[in-house]
Amino acid sequence: MRVNPHYRELAESYLFSTISRKVKEYQDAHPDAAVIRLGIGDVTRPLAPAVVEAMERAAAEQGEAATFRGYGPEQGYPFLREAVAAYYAGFGVELSPEEVFISDGAKSDLGNILDLFAADNTVLIPDPVYPVYVDTNRMAGRPILFADATWENGFLPAPDPAVKADIIYICSPNNPTGAVYTREGLQAWVDYALAQDAVILFDAAYACFIQDPALPRSIYEIPGARDCAIEFGSFSKMAGFTGTRCGFTIVPQGLTREGMSLAGMWLRRQTTKFNGVPYIVQRGAEAVFTPHGLTQIQENLDYYRENARVIMAGLTQAGIAFTGGEHSPYLWLRCPGGLDSWSYFDRLLQEAQVVGTPGAGFGRNGEGYFRLTAFGDQDATRQAMARLAALRF
Amino acid sequence: MRVNPHYRELAESYLFSTISRKVKEYQDAHPDAAVIRLGIGDVTRPLAPAVVEAMERAAAEQGEAATFRGYGPEQGYPFLREAVAAYYAGFGVELSPEEVFISDGAKSDLGNILDLFAADNTVLIPDPVYPVYVDTNRMAGRPILFADATWENGFLPAPDPAVKADIIYICSPNNPTGAVYTREGLQAWVDYALAQDAVILFDAAYACFIQDPALPRSIYEIPGARDCAIEFGSFSKMAGFTGTRCGFTIVPQGLTREGMSLAGMWLRRQTTKFNGVPYIVQRGAEAVFTPHGLTQIQENLDYYRENARVIMAGLTQAGIAFTGGEHSPYLWLRCPGGLDSWSYFDRLLQEAQVVGTPGAGFGRNGEGYFRLTAFGDQDATRQAMARLAALRF
Repeated sequence: MRVNPHYRELAESYLFSTISRKVKEYQDAHPDAAVIRLGIGDVTRPLAPAVVEAMERAAAEQGEAATFRGYGPEQGYPFLREAVAAYYAGFGVELSPEEVFISDGAKSDLGNILDLFAADNTVLIPDPVYPVYVDTNRMAGRPILFADATWENGFLPAPDPAVKADIIYICSPNNPTGAVYTREGLQAWVDYALAQDAVILFDAAYACFIQDPALPRSIYEIPGARDCAIEFGSFSKMAGFTGTRCGFTIVPQGLTREGMSLAGMWLRRQTTKFNGVPYIVQRGAEAVFTPHGLTQIQENLDYYRENARVIMAGLTQAGIAFTGGEHSPYLWLRCPGGLDSWSYFDRLLQEAQVVGTPGAGFGRNGEGYFRLTAFGDQDATRQAMARLAALRF
Repeated sequence: MRVNPHYRELAESYLFSTISRKVKEYQDAHPDAAVIRLGIGDVTRPLAPAVVEAMERAAAEQGEAATFRGYGPEQGYPFLREAVAAYYAGFGVELSPEEVFISDGAKSDLGNILDLFAADNTVLIPDPVYPVYVDTNRMAGRPILFADATWENGFLPAPDPAVKADIIYICSPNNPTGAVYTREGLQAWVDYALAQDAVILFDAAYACFIQDPALPRSIYEIPGARDCAIEFGSFSKMAGFTGTRCGFTIVPQGLTREGMSLAGMWLRRQTTKFNGVPYIVQRGAEAVFTPHGLTQIQENLDYYRENARVIMAGLTQAGIAFTGGEHSPYLWLRCPGGLDSWSYFDRLLQEAQVVGTPGAGFGRNGEGYFRLTAFGDQDATRQAMARLAALRF
């Protein structure tokens, strides 16, 4: 018996569990401290009434023999696949419902999709970025290259034709930097992927925060993307589903590599290693796209957008440079006083009782930066920014 | 870009999708035929009222800011991990809640657990068996050996010390044969696994059908199992969760291979590639273990047990030899008239409008056998058995 040897290559502790431990240690030592968490990317607003009602109805259906549903299609019920396709059509992207695969979340699919690719493919990942892109590939032993995202390039690296890659991650709006690619920026990546015969894994989990219609919300707005890109969407941030679990993956029909249909391979993977999303949750997700649902989720998104404005104003007032916040729930700031990102974390926690996420947790280029999120309570966010702006370095 | 080359080695069509296609073709050609499905292993009884009420309450909680829950622990909420541990304690198996990992179903975990093992491990799989054990390992390119389950050994193969294996699958009560290992039978496998330094993946999805307390419901009833076995449980058959999606995987603390804790590796896998089960579903699963919940699920299980008795009586009357049905929802019959299993499938469909599952779909040794399930409607099951018994070969 040999265990997967690549697990030894993983860093010992996951970013957010380290933060949790530090916060717990601080709170144990200071039980009266009012710690405000602007760290982990979790939402706080409740589910929309339309979603709750749909799930209550579906739960009741599951309790009656006449309406009970057992195993559903592994790739999701047609009602939800069609609703996602109709939502995309609303901003000009034509998808067949057969190209939409419902999942229990973008995180699961971003890891699971790797089953489709050979272990010796080279992966190109922006740095800094959401850590699971790196960890899931390390677990499989794939060689990883990084595309440097820096203050100088606006945290939006452009492809380098001299670099050969097979699997390319793009997250736009970006976690953690909040940077958003323009059409031209994404077109360069699509052209590069086509030239390299690579596949882009496009993480669109934060697309709902884009307010400027000139910015692409889907990679399929870019000519050529259907021949090189898989897109991952999520109800987590769009509709507060972080604890309800639903997402979707789009694999275009006709996207092939080495003569194999990637949609066909993904269907085979999902029918073999997955059993679909709960019926109740799929009905909840469907309700997101009803007129009431869309209005209600916008109210929550506007709430978070207001938080983002509060954070932007606080940082500006404090003279701290940052990116993000306009089309993203994330703000990415340059640590003041030349601090490294864990030192800034510790000082913010101890002196302002504010929890953020050290940029170093997102990659080498994250050192010296820090992530705040707009998902908190509005009063608490205001208070946190007042405390943060009052700190002197 | 290279795709995963092992996908080419998979059989073209998944068992149940072939059956679906054949049934659809028959129904399209005979729109008035009343086809009765005793094929796919899906339940038909609705969720217990205690479960529905718990999920409705949880959905309402998710709609209120004060009670809303976002990301939960990837390995499941303590309330459910503790409830599962308490359930196991009820039949004498002591588990720590930290050893219980909540998942979206045994099928997902049975595939995902393989991430923990090296690709060159040798896998030992009973034949016939649930096809995903084979397919998930073929996808990873692992060498596979089969343990012959035959009429002669009661479809309960014993270990062969001359065979070297690293990963061993055991499904008891078995899908598809309904055979159940005794304590002595499982002890032989545990002793073999310990001697080989192998890991047993024990699929206990049908444990709730065991009625004889002398038969083991968990591999942890067997001395030594904590040092060599991972167990997979499911709410699907126990509580009708096939469309609601919840299961659990037990990885004992102290189970190590090559110095690595498998529980630690699994936690790392799940925190990296999974985001937990919906809070609403976990509350529903918790309700299964309440006094009302346990009574209500037993009523459904008794309904299926009565179906199993109907099928057993029908087969006996027709003079067809079979295994299973007593401690299992599955009945495994020897095709009458010396038919091969797909021929019997076609004749049953066309002449009796009854759908079962051809044994050949479960492995080489399944040829000449056929699976019926006790999950149908009671009247329809009686009618199906009357039709089946009337056929002459």
